[in-house]
Amino acid sequence: MKATAKAPSNIAFIKYWGRKDEALKLPSNGSVSMNLSGLTTTTTVEFSPDYKEDEIIINGILEPEEKTAKIFSHLDRIRKFAKIDEKAKIVSENSFPRGTGLSSSASGFAALTLAASKAAGLDLSEKELSILARQGSGSACRSIPDGFVEWLDGDTSEDSYAVSLYPPEHWDLVDIAVILTEQVKDVSTTEGQKLAATSPFFEARQSKIKDKIVKIKDYLKNKNFEKFGELVESEALELHAIMLTSQPSLIYINPATVAVMKAVKKWRSEGLQVYFTLNTGQNIHLICEKISAAAVVSKVKESEFAQAIIENAPSRGAGIADHHLF
Amino acid sequence: MKATAKAPSNIAFIKYWGRKDEALKLPSNGSVSMNLSGLTTTTTVEFSPDYKEDEIIINGILEPEEKTAKIFSHLDRIRKFAKIDEKAKIVSENSFPRGTGLSSSASGFAALTLAASKAAGLDLSEKELSILARQGSGSACRSIPDGFVEWLDGDTSEDSYAVSLYPPEHWDLVDIAVILTEQVKDVSTTEGQKLAATSPFFEARQSKIKDKIVKIKDYLKNKNFEKFGELVESEALELHAIMLTSQPSLIYINPATVAVMKAVKKWRSEGLQVYFTLNTGQNIHLICEKISAAAVVSKVKESEFAQAIIENAPSRGAGIADHHLF
Repeated sequence: MKATAKAPSNIAFIKYWGRKDEALKLPSNGSVSMNLSGLTTTTTVEFSPDYKEDEIIINGILEPEEKTAKIFSHLDRIRKFAKIDEKAKIVSENSFPRGTGLSSSASGFAALTLAASKAAGLDLSEKELSILARQGSGSACRSIPDGFVEWLDGDTSEDSYAVSLYPPEHWDLVDIAVILTEQVKDVSTTEGQKLAATSPFFEARQSKIKDKIVKIKDYLKNKNFEKFGELVESEALELHAIMLTSQPSLIYINPATVAVMKAVKKWRSEGLQVYFTLNTGQNIHLICEKISAAAVVSKVKESEFAQAIIENAPSRGAGIADHHLF
Repeated sequence: MKATAKAPSNIAFIKYWGRKDEALKLPSNGSVSMNLSGLTTTTTVEFSPDYKEDEIIINGILEPEEKTAKIFSHLDRIRKFAKIDEKAKIVSENSFPRGTGLSSSASGFAALTLAASKAAGLDLSEKELSILARQGSGSACRSIPDGFVEWLDGDTSEDSYAVSLYPPEHWDLVDIAVILTEQVKDVSTTEGQKLAATSPFFEARQSKIKDKIVKIKDYLKNKNFEKFGELVESEALELHAIMLTSQPSLIYINPATVAVMKAVKKWRSEGLQVYFTLNTGQNIHLICEKISAAAVVSKVKESEFAQAIIENAPSRGAGIADHHLF
């Protein structure tokens, strides 16, 4: 009753912000993303009658009790599904810092869902895994399928899951994650999500989002990088416009984020084909085609913005790993 | 045929962004502002047959030809009104740097309108001056009347002017203008205004702005500082949300602006009653009551954000000055 899974984080091109069902984590709209090869979580789960309590160790540190509720209630969900009641030991390792807007909850809950369901003796379909991962942490459902992914806009739990649009090989896009700070966010994504609908602009955003998803899928299909980049960047700014106008306001962008945003626009005006996108949190993702990646990385390094740079290719979704972490 | 006028800049609590008539500079909506005692322009205008060309010296420097078109066409407007055709010499001095979001065009065109009309032999009413100033630079119309001001939402040039809501003595608000940089904006306000309606959120903003004006006037009347500050700050963020989502996007905020925005929220959470507002440009205005001003200034100084701090009380509008600049 032990299994290990590895899952990527993902970057959304069309974002998920706001929920139509808080308990089921049903988002207000569909979203489109890419799995990230360099931002992964590996998790080993073992269920055993020897364990008296659930326990989770992340990056070598025992997760403090006040932070485990979300994780253990996800375990309960999987135990209920598998009709088992053994407690679990979980060991998890991220290839990147947590709580900095790099979506460790996406890769984390995707890996946990796959490893725990396997360890519990379940053999779930991709759709079932995606639905289950979503209940742990919304965007984790997008880290289950391969490559370029759409989270379908469903009105019930059974209809709200992610599917692969294209395998990783479809388009050699590069996501350059620029890590500006390891400072943890003031307001968690979960709390922020609840405020989305308080923005006076939320309805206007919702009224156009289906059209944006049609467009991004078209640009993705045709590999129209310029149109794609323009839409991705304007979507990121729209997300932050919603956050800034929430009541109370959410200022997730940091001084350094703004510096990079302005730099990207400047580099583009000089002919470098690169666009930015942002999640919540303090890091920024630069999107380019492979042909431009070295030039973009070199610009970022010159500018001394970054504490670290992680270059990501499109990647497979969550998968079983052979090597256990304990 | 020589006159000198002094006019304040102003800070809008409910903003003007977007125009329903580009040529007449009719804004999409009304706005509410306060004149600023420490941000002033003094301008002397002389019409004389001795002058062969119009000429303007700002802060001791002859204004280069490519930047005079807006100013000289405003002079033409006044000459036409007064039925004169003498050329003019203009000398103008700002108490603060230009082109940094401190609305030098508001104080500048208000002072120019009053000085030039007086020098041209006109004796205009406050309403006439406000209409005329507006045609030079929109928000200049708000720098004509005294104290706390409303720019009425008119559909014709004759109906689009500003009136005093309360004299400066009404409420001892303080505007602490934090000058972060003297770098000039990438995109001028005039160009930015044209993009307002390209934001997917512009209509949603417009649909609620009349209600915001009713509210801000109520808080102003009752000196309800907390409600007032909350609305002022959320309006500033809404303005920048519109800018960020324009097509193409306008990123007027700077890294340092974001640092101050976050600091203000933190100071407030610690009990200091202060809110921020932003115009376009790179500076930030902190709004508090007089009783908190020293504490706010001390916080700003401690944080080393500011190149300079200008403390402003509510002030009179444009007025004739006795002392000519030449």
